[in-house]
Amino acid sequence: MKNEEPRHFLLIAGRGSLPKLVYEELVSCGDNVEITFLPGSEHDDLTTRHTKINPDNFLDLLQKYRGMGVEHVVLAGGVDRPNQTSILFKHGETNNQINIMGGDDSILKQFITVIEEIGFKIWGVHQVIPQLINHNGVLTDRSPSSADKSDIIFAEEIVTSIGNADIGQAAVVRNNRCIAVETISTDWMLDSIKDVYSTFANNPDERGGILIKASKPNQDLRVDLPTIGPNTIQRVVSLGMSGLVIESGKVILIDLPKVIQMANQSGIFIWSKSINRNIREKYS
Amino acid sequence: MKNEEPRHFLLIAGRGSLPKLVYEELVSCGDNVEITFLPGSEHDDLTTRHTKINPDNFLDLLQKYRGMGVEHVVLAGGVDRPNQTSILFKHGETNNQINIMGGDDSILKQFITVIEEIGFKIWGVHQVIPQLINHNGVLTDRSPSSADKSDIIFAEEIVTSIGNADIGQAAVVRNNRCIAVETISTDWMLDSIKDVYSTFANNPDERGGILIKASKPNQDLRVDLPTIGPNTIQRVVSLGMSGLVIESGKVILIDLPKVIQMANQSGIFIWSKSINRNIREKYS
Repeated sequence: MKNEEPRHFLLIAGRGSLPKLVYEELVSCGDNVEITFLPGSEHDDLTTRHTKINPDNFLDLLQKYRGMGVEHVVLAGGVDRPNQTSILFKHGETNNQINIMGGDDSILKQFITVIEEIGFKIWGVHQVIPQLINHNGVLTDRSPSSADKSDIIFAEEIVTSIGNADIGQAAVVRNNRCIAVETISTDWMLDSIKDVYSTFANNPDERGGILIKASKPNQDLRVDLPTIGPNTIQRVVSLGMSGLVIESGKVILIDLPKVIQMANQSGIFIWSKSINRNIREKYS
Repeated sequence: MKNEEPRHFLLIAGRGSLPKLVYEELVSCGDNVEITFLPGSEHDDLTTRHTKINPDNFLDLLQKYRGMGVEHVVLAGGVDRPNQTSILFKHGETNNQINIMGGDDSILKQFITVIEEIGFKIWGVHQVIPQLINHNGVLTDRSPSSADKSDIIFAEEIVTSIGNADIGQAAVVRNNRCIAVETISTDWMLDSIKDVYSTFANNPDERGGILIKASKPNQDLRVDLPTIGPNTIQRVVSLGMSGLVIESGKVILIDLPKVIQMANQSGIFIWSKSINRNIREKYS
């Protein structure tokens, strides 16, 4: 649907399929879109009008776009954490330093501050394409069992605890036991428990456990929304898990029709639900 | 040092070197010691007077020892989690079921309840051999740097959060970022981040990060005290980490002289300190 007044966007693109989805949505709305790519994130299918960002030109580049009349910025796609402990953004005579130590939230807040200080309005992917997060209820043929629901109650406590502490946004729970907590990435976490799950497989009576993925309790939704897509579903299936819980309205679901189809073919459930943020005081 | 009045102990032995240490300490005090071994925990060096526990004879065995005048029970050594979801302890005409679903605390509390109901007094390893947990301060030639101390502040929050949620007792923090959280075991956690650490190694300026190991807040210290020994030190060293923080008075340190020697030879620090249990409200 075309906007009456075209907006002028800068798309800061990371890895994965989100940047292309955002680009196509904005273009179809009649907006003007400039693109810059974060290091390691060049897209073959987004070849026009792009400039690669590096620490030496980042601030100058943003100022240039602002001078061209760009008013809006959207960050989309996965970002590899820089290996340095800090990044010095050079601009004219001044420098602007982002401290890379700390959790993802800490880094992204500094990043957003730099962009907003230049005068841009920052948009989240979900504000450009609301249907990516508009899911609610059990999305699959299979529903969670009462045993799965017991795991989910514990899992909601875990994502609340680890979200508050800026550790991660996902966990695996099985038989009311926490098997894994996301730190590096969800896919890395799922790969790391292959051996553990293979020991479970010796007992065919055992249920498979659940993956939960949720936003952090007080997260800035404009950046770093947790994202689920076919790659994650494939890992959940190959581990033999029962299913997947995602936070309704706060987790991006990429390629929903394919995700649902994969889940139904494999017999897992996907439940989009609001997360209970109450923590029981277990040991007091 | 001999007790004036010999006590009569049942040692329930798991894996590792703790059961032998406990056995030798009790014998040197002049106490009488019976031994039973949990499945998978036979010790070549503790061959006398032992009976293997299995779910079918566990309650009867405990009753037999109680009838023999055994008054004290000590649980020592690592225990593999049973693969079943519940264990039915058979005793005469009655059954006693322990639900294996849940975190370690939940299982151990049920286990302790069964033993106490029969009339035993339960001892922690640290009550038999207090010197195993009597460590305090920086134990090594190397001290933590100010950057390490910054990681440690975050790490204290993490072990408090994951301890309250009965997730685990250890974590790895590096540059104020949580790299890993213990779920299965500390050694498993350290093995799982080898690949992650090898990517850090490309940048020689990077510090190595710290391992923290602490009891759960409000833990019953008689069972499941976190334990550190040469195996863990060897893993910390081979990953290239800076050092290790353990909770003073609440973490068992096995083979202290060897642990200190290994740490000093490798240039890592070991800091035994009380853990700050305050959680900052980061996102409110």
